[in-house]
Amino acid sequence: MTKTAREIRVAVSTVIFSLRRRPGGDGATIVLPLVKRTRDPHEGQWALPGGWLGGDEPLERAASRTLAETTTLTPSYLEQLYAFGDPDRSSSRVVSIVYWALVREDVSLESEQHNVAWFDATALPELAFDHNQIVDYALWRLRNKVGYSRIAHGLLPDLFTLAELREVYEAILGRRLDPANFRRQVENSATLIPTDRFRTGSHRPARLYRYNQDVELADRGPLPSDSPLPARSREARS
Amino acid sequence: MTKTAREIRVAVSTVIFSLRRRPGGDGATIVLPLVKRTRDPHEGQWALPGGWLGGDEPLERAASRTLAETTTLTPSYLEQLYAFGDPDRSSSRVVSIVYWALVREDVSLESEQHNVAWFDATALPELAFDHNQIVDYALWRLRNKVGYSRIAHGLLPDLFTLAELREVYEAILGRRLDPANFRRQVENSATLIPTDRFRTGSHRPARLYRYNQDVELADRGPLPSDSPLPARSREARS
Repeated sequence: MTKTAREIRVAVSTVIFSLRRRPGGDGATIVLPLVKRTRDPHEGQWALPGGWLGGDEPLERAASRTLAETTTLTPSYLEQLYAFGDPDRSSSRVVSIVYWALVREDVSLESEQHNVAWFDATALPELAFDHNQIVDYALWRLRNKVGYSRIAHGLLPDLFTLAELREVYEAILGRRLDPANFRRQVENSATLIPTDRFRTGSHRPARLYRYNQDVELADRGPLPSDSPLPARSREARS
Repeated sequence: MTKTAREIRVAVSTVIFSLRRRPGGDGATIVLPLVKRTRDPHEGQWALPGGWLGGDEPLERAASRTLAETTTLTPSYLEQLYAFGDPDRSSSRVVSIVYWALVREDVSLESEQHNVAWFDATALPELAFDHNQIVDYALWRLRNKVGYSRIAHGLLPDLFTLAELREVYEAILGRRLDPANFRRQVENSATLIPTDRFRTGSHRPARLYRYNQDVELADRGPLPSDSPLPARSREARS
């Protein structure tokens, strides 16, 4: 049977990354929330939060809405990832516009609901549909992006130590970084502002930094629904 | 009236960049083909090549098909750009999955058809729908991408001089580059292989280079329809 364009449906899903510190100060892990499906297809399997695009709803708003409905989370960063539309990715024809989001660790673990759970992004079970591939691609984008943008700050609270920032990079990249080199690179980059506050605890006090708000966090795509600026002006700022 | 998800239609459009040399050896311009609309909405206005997504058609194949149907072009590079889905971008609800493509200059000007014409990408008329914004975003992506990938080669024939490569960069970036610095940077990058052939003409002979085929041209997205590799293997190569 040949499906016509009319029979194609549009869904929006979101890959939401956050950070979970491992017990005993042994680094951190990138985690994401998944939703257990309560009906066919793939009933009982875990899937990305998402839902159908509303008829009058902008794409980005649909991503925020379905994210809030399924996980109660509000992201610190939200960007369109990719449109997935292979004809055989579902039993009916569904084009999924996928967003990816970051939520800060200090809010991420408060909000567990029934049928929603956090998973280690690098050790997932077999997910519904093509969602394993989607998460793989989102992780690839996250790793690429951490190299040339300030995306890591989307996973941190407002004030953080350099060790905590390095932990985020290590969790994203999946490898250890030399602390002295890391400190030098970050201090040279002018994206951080040192504060007069220190983190005290079992170690010697560590200075707290904040992100330089004058620099835009990251590319939010060409047409954010609430941007007052036309595309040309936004480009000029980049 | 509230539209339901069923009433959302999916289209695919492509922004196709090529290079046109200005007469008199005065640099080059980024150009793109547009199609004059023959029916409402926006009858008589220029628009990006595109069409409806077929019911059983992968997204990338739809981009190639509509591109070939409207312009007879086959791209040297094709990548998904963004999904545009604002509810008011058209009188009916249309989500457009937009691709962007590069075609080499040596084929780009052979294929003019009725109702298809090439335009300077930086001096467009008012296009149908939100297509001006889409072109702006594609230009921004092209400019970003030229900085950290070998995307410029998608606009060149197999053999080219360093001056021709620099002309591509200048056309994309919209500014002149210092020839000696450019030569040094390119020669250090290991992405070019010098050949034993030379371009002769009004100037002194210039060595011809070819692109190093061992290095992948650029990111083609997570799930190219004809790739034999699963997503994980492709990521490992990047």
